[in-house]
Amino acid sequence: MVEPTKVLLSEAEMPKDWYNVRSDLPFSMPPMLHPGKGAPVEEDDLVPIFPRALVEQELTLERWVAIPEEIREIYALWRPTPLVRAQRLEKALGTPARIYYKWEGVSPPGSHKANTSVAQAFYNKLEGVKRLATETGAGQWGSALAFACQLFDLACKVYMVRVSYDQKPYRRILMETWGATCVPSPSRETEAGRKVLEADPETSGSLGIAISEAVEEAVKREDTKYSLGSVLNHVMLHQTVIGLEAKAQLASIGAYPDVLIGCVGGGSNFAGLFLPFIPDKLNGAAPELRVVCTEPAACPTLTRGPYAYDFGDTACTTPLLKMFTLGHAFVPPPLHAGGLRYHGMAPIICALLDQGLIEARAYSQLPVFAAGLQFARTEGTVPAPEPMHAIRAVIDEALRCREAGKAETIVFSLSGHGHFDLSAYAAYLSGSLEEPAQEEDAVRQALACLPMVP
Amino acid sequence: MVEPTKVLLSEAEMPKDWYNVRSDLPFSMPPMLHPGKGAPVEEDDLVPIFPRALVEQELTLERWVAIPEEIREIYALWRPTPLVRAQRLEKALGTPARIYYKWEGVSPPGSHKANTSVAQAFYNKLEGVKRLATETGAGQWGSALAFACQLFDLACKVYMVRVSYDQKPYRRILMETWGATCVPSPSRETEAGRKVLEADPETSGSLGIAISEAVEEAVKREDTKYSLGSVLNHVMLHQTVIGLEAKAQLASIGAYPDVLIGCVGGGSNFAGLFLPFIPDKLNGAAPELRVVCTEPAACPTLTRGPYAYDFGDTACTTPLLKMFTLGHAFVPPPLHAGGLRYHGMAPIICALLDQGLIEARAYSQLPVFAAGLQFARTEGTVPAPEPMHAIRAVIDEALRCREAGKAETIVFSLSGHGHFDLSAYAAYLSGSLEEPAQEEDAVRQALACLPMVP
Repeated sequence: MVEPTKVLLSEAEMPKDWYNVRSDLPFSMPPMLHPGKGAPVEEDDLVPIFPRALVEQELTLERWVAIPEEIREIYALWRPTPLVRAQRLEKALGTPARIYYKWEGVSPPGSHKANTSVAQAFYNKLEGVKRLATETGAGQWGSALAFACQLFDLACKVYMVRVSYDQKPYRRILMETWGATCVPSPSRETEAGRKVLEADPETSGSLGIAISEAVEEAVKREDTKYSLGSVLNHVMLHQTVIGLEAKAQLASIGAYPDVLIGCVGGGSNFAGLFLPFIPDKLNGAAPELRVVCTEPAACPTLTRGPYAYDFGDTACTTPLLKMFTLGHAFVPPPLHAGGLRYHGMAPIICALLDQGLIEARAYSQLPVFAAGLQFARTEGTVPAPEPMHAIRAVIDEALRCREAGKAETIVFSLSGHGHFDLSAYAAYLSGSLEEPAQEEDAVRQALACLPMVP
Repeated sequence: MVEPTKVLLSEAEMPKDWYNVRSDLPFSMPPMLHPGKGAPVEEDDLVPIFPRALVEQELTLERWVAIPEEIREIYALWRPTPLVRAQRLEKALGTPARIYYKWEGVSPPGSHKANTSVAQAFYNKLEGVKRLATETGAGQWGSALAFACQLFDLACKVYMVRVSYDQKPYRRILMETWGATCVPSPSRETEAGRKVLEADPETSGSLGIAISEAVEEAVKREDTKYSLGSVLNHVMLHQTVIGLEAKAQLASIGAYPDVLIGCVGGGSNFAGLFLPFIPDKLNGAAPELRVVCTEPAACPTLTRGPYAYDFGDTACTTPLLKMFTLGHAFVPPPLHAGGLRYHGMAPIICALLDQGLIEARAYSQLPVFAAGLQFARTEGTVPAPEPMHAIRAVIDEALRCREAGKAETIVFSLSGHGHFDLSAYAAYLSGSLEEPAQEEDAVRQALACLPMVP
């Protein structure tokens, strides 16, 4: 064992600042627009739903934002996370490529989401907030916020997209174990939810609908603020601990990636990994570095959506974001990768894609699960359905390296474990997992209505 | 953060040998007896069911057994495991005690069991075995063996105790994800299973019954050997990587335990932690070190069973082991800590208890879950029901330290995560979890029949 299987950092080497890529971009990000006024939002527009510290982080152009000691102490429960060499997968593929994964599943809630949930709970607590409301798809974010709220003694209410609520019952129990309340969305508890249920009582729900419910609750209740697990700038900021650690870990073994790969729903896990590498592409240090976003063919935001201003939620209550979008009314077909069922995408990722700095590709469900199972059976670790999309691309890139005889370095984000997604594995193993039937129709229909907002 | 939250070792510091405590004992362990002849078993008696390398490890008195490189490479996927300071729990308890846990839940199957499953699969593969049969209680061992068999390309058949098979459906899927076959025990696939089902078609099953089924299959099928996840000397041997690492980790921060705590079913996770500390008790380096075994009141092997020769399984097919036992016919009441539902105990642990070198205590289910929930809500990590027994004792000891104003160092084995045990959490949170009703009757009845073998 000359090169270790796991590249570790000590707690003392954990990043002391989050990295803000916006300070280094050679172009201006299109601003968030106020949904009523149509003008760029200002701090005061956002403070009704977010604590001021997070609003400042949302808008800041400072390069580094210090991570408070209280947050670093909690990060230390599982961070720095390992960077693992997937040698058994390499061998199975017969590839000369070197494959590494940044393993975020070691956090108590089981994914990268804890990197921002802890930060968000901390700043809310600091500003006297008593209660947070949020949405969750597959449940990774809801669990992460429940975990963080428990540690900071905040109440927590989670609207969980119905299809995932039904598919992943253990996720609800996990949230309750950490003291949170979890209801399926759409629910009868909000106007937004009731409206959707009246139109379609059998709806599988969507992240867009669940966001509307949580935002409505935060606006209506004095004691409650809203918390978002992806998409926004401050969430991407918190996740950069992933990439900052990965860069240091790779440097410690004298390596640098040729390709970075991740899955994107709202975009936070992969942005967390790749954003700290973007300056190297811009300043000429690594102009050839490729950054590959993967998404489901059933929700092909980056690969088929137009780049336009759209709402973040179904009920049109959020600010307008410039993003690749399938339209805020799009309800993706039921998919096991519930965390990727979102009509839009982080504006930072969209701007980088629009500028040609990163690439995107879409995969359908069955080849994605085949890749996930191959990973579980070679590396042992059982991935969640979301990062299986990344694994699909990793395997494809590694096979390309085999054909080309190239020993490239491939680094990907393994954002979470699949312990609560085993019903999906059971469906795949029994042969009953199918591609969502309505996929093409649904996407075509959604695209026909776009742009929702010019 | 002067002292880190997690004490880590590098892969280079991973133990290169397993430690055999039997080489250092000032007394002879009572030998395993042949079930037919009644004489001490010899190597050739065991080779029909185990590969010769494991039989040698079962009987050896060598102090150190080298860990083959192939096993260390797989261990490196998750080892060395972290030693974590439970500062948030300490604070919640207001105790001056320093609490550390050795966190074995980071292995792909989620517990310490992988330490021996990988070793067992390796030696079987080396000797040309094609297929392994085993039993599992809560599923931790079955998953660990499925994982190891997948890595060494062996077929794997798991008899899972029926009550756990019904309570923990995700465990079966996990085993299938790694290519194993899992059936509920008692099953109709073996004579032993059919016999039990005829007598009691509604039986919840037991580890003793499931062992009989797996052993029967290994004896009857030419291509199949048997694999045991606890109790035997070679299993305890493999688990000593836990304690060897923990000793090095504690030494690296200048600490030494006053109390070691763990849960015991067959005894392997806790033996793995404490055996490497036993020489310090014997040679005068740490005569005051306390070693506390915890077990369920519903299956009080160490605290209420007599010390006698008994069979390891219900059908009386295994060698006779000198152990504290509730009798091989004992069927423990359904308990969520399925891994602790065993009538006997590792002979090494029993001999140490008999000699007064270690202590034991029993806890009932509700206070155990209260402790587990307190841990999940302070430290974040969700423990399996088995190590909740250890946590109960840790909290009690920490409260004793508070009363006495003593800053003792408490180290415990957190043997696995509870991700597949969330139905038990749901039952506890909803108030529907109860103490097993038949507990006292069942134990009394079992004890009345003892000793099964004089």
